[in-house]
Amino acid sequence: MQILNDTDGMLLALEWAAKGMYTTAPNPRIGCVIVKGNVVIGAGHTQPAGQAHAEIEALRDASERGNDVRGATAYVTLEPCNHHGRTPPCSDALVRAGLGRVVAAMEDPNPLVAGQGLAKLAQAGIDVACGVMADAAYEMNIGFFSRMRRGLPWVRLKSAASLDGMTALYNGHSQWITGPQARADGHAWRARACVILTGIGTVKADDPQLNVRAVATGRQPRRVIVDSNLDIDLDAKVLAGSPSWIVAAGEHAHNASKAAALRAAGHDVLNLPNAAGKVDLAALMRELGRRAINEVHVEAGAKLNGSLIREGCVDELLVYLAPSLIGEAQGMFALGPLTSLEQRQRLAFHSVKQVGEDLRILARFIHSF
Amino acid sequence: MQILNDTDGMLLALEWAAKGMYTTAPNPRIGCVIVKGNVVIGAGHTQPAGQAHAEIEALRDASERGNDVRGATAYVTLEPCNHHGRTPPCSDALVRAGLGRVVAAMEDPNPLVAGQGLAKLAQAGIDVACGVMADAAYEMNIGFFSRMRRGLPWVRLKSAASLDGMTALYNGHSQWITGPQARADGHAWRARACVILTGIGTVKADDPQLNVRAVATGRQPRRVIVDSNLDIDLDAKVLAGSPSWIVAAGEHAHNASKAAALRAAGHDVLNLPNAAGKVDLAALMRELGRRAINEVHVEAGAKLNGSLIREGCVDELLVYLAPSLIGEAQGMFALGPLTSLEQRQRLAFHSVKQVGEDLRILARFIHSF
Repeated sequence: MQILNDTDGMLLALEWAAKGMYTTAPNPRIGCVIVKGNVVIGAGHTQPAGQAHAEIEALRDASERGNDVRGATAYVTLEPCNHHGRTPPCSDALVRAGLGRVVAAMEDPNPLVAGQGLAKLAQAGIDVACGVMADAAYEMNIGFFSRMRRGLPWVRLKSAASLDGMTALYNGHSQWITGPQARADGHAWRARACVILTGIGTVKADDPQLNVRAVATGRQPRRVIVDSNLDIDLDAKVLAGSPSWIVAAGEHAHNASKAAALRAAGHDVLNLPNAAGKVDLAALMRELGRRAINEVHVEAGAKLNGSLIREGCVDELLVYLAPSLIGEAQGMFALGPLTSLEQRQRLAFHSVKQVGEDLRILARFIHSF
Repeated sequence: MQILNDTDGMLLALEWAAKGMYTTAPNPRIGCVIVKGNVVIGAGHTQPAGQAHAEIEALRDASERGNDVRGATAYVTLEPCNHHGRTPPCSDALVRAGLGRVVAAMEDPNPLVAGQGLAKLAQAGIDVACGVMADAAYEMNIGFFSRMRRGLPWVRLKSAASLDGMTALYNGHSQWITGPQARADGHAWRARACVILTGIGTVKADDPQLNVRAVATGRQPRRVIVDSNLDIDLDAKVLAGSPSWIVAAGEHAHNASKAAALRAAGHDVLNLPNAAGKVDLAALMRELGRRAINEVHVEAGAKLNGSLIREGCVDELLVYLAPSLIGEAQGMFALGPLTSLEQRQRLAFHSVKQVGEDLRILARFIHSF
């Protein structure tokens, strides 16, 4: 493959970044491609946290292949880091290796980097450019950017409904409304999240596993259950296999004993009550940000969905619409009857795609722009 | 423009056909392009009923431009007719003109033609082909095909809702949910229909005009109002400007006197009761087919929408979804609570497009394939 211009180089770097889609959290997914004479001489992507960053991987790849990187151009989907975290600064490694040019898609939003990585490269005499394919690079790490800029994770709420917006019958009759391709696509979105969030209502009604099964992943997202009164059964499937975080809204006697049992089973119990005695959802999102959660994937019932939306906690809807009509039934979001259409929640469509026989719609809340 | 192959020629003929989109009913919209030496030497499209067909227009155009059509190829989006309707057979005109080749997109479904037009051309020594761009040609005249094959119009039901499927609040508060581009797009769909169908509920609630205003058209569709008990006011806006058809479900005294008043005002009153004393919607569609209606455009409330869907009268949904959420409110289709999801109405998505800030979804009922 010939790399004839910066767009070609960055597109390939983004492909490499995507190889870390399910595994780099809490670090961003970064790809790096080293090009010399229009030919790729090294490539890599971010390894799981604590291991090598993309630039180090690409340099190692070039070295292993016997390629001389001196004077070459490195395409990297985020500004090389300039600080000692769990690994040493990538900017130093690029300078030492004698790169001639470094092209970044975006500046690192991490206040510990924020332009200093590129500045150090420039000071070392490396030709530096920034801003190539920035939109695609942003989308790939939208949760990391959200956490760095706002201290909050990017919250994506998934729902699946008929074309007229219904998820199940009032009589409780429910089954897969969307097709197998949409369900597999939904698992890919689960897999990229740090956390899958649901409510006790869904746990009690469906006893879901809420893990990733339809796509291969080296890491399962953590499950987080909103459960004001700690009504969860210790043998709920959502608690099986790995430690979960259960979010309660009070420390009364029942909760205290259930919390002790949950903790004894390896789970963490957070206590985040609001004035109404429910879980303070905005405080929960702040806490998830503090815990280095980049992307939250919500799969819950209409009630928790509605509360999250009303309390401004949701950034993006991931809605699968099936080619069917159900009529009067259970809707996706319990938003309570409005008294004026001015009160409606406003979004913007981000993308639409046919997945199998269904439509997949991504729409973002106006407040999240 | 060079016509290098049959696809080029038929694409251009389809563009010419589209020029008759709003005016040819009850005839199909046909385009014809005559090509010689890769150059277009004549083109035309179907004129309003009783006037020239596309082939005659294209021959006239070539003649007016001083072009010799002998030996040329004609691309026509439907098989040339072979019968005397309100105009003489086009197949005869093509033979007389000395065309060398005729390429049709589809055979004419009209049992009066049905392959005989192409057969006559072949017998006269003209090289004949059929089936180029057949899908696009079918879509353009889907209502004409429906009427010829089933004796029924193609029924397209338009609705506009929030992403969660709501059209208005329960308290009656309603306003434009979708944006101006979606509304203009909706008028283009109105304009191509032979009939705009609504119910007395919508007439009483909104007093709509239900005519075409946002796009230019030389012909307004006829308005048809489902009004079992003839509750319509004579000064309803939907009755203004041109004769409408009002569909009642009984001949009792009130209806008889209102029917007389409506007829005196130039309207037609149909009486099509079913056993429940409501309008027999399936019988109405058969009657519209008999009256040479190709495409019916439904803009009605949830109740009539639901009845039309439940009674199998709708072929296609044209749904505009706005980027907003309304929550518990008035849905698009009153289908009555189902007792099992097996009873849901099944469709297939046909197309999705962003129109302004909204999505336009075309979905077809499985029974209409």
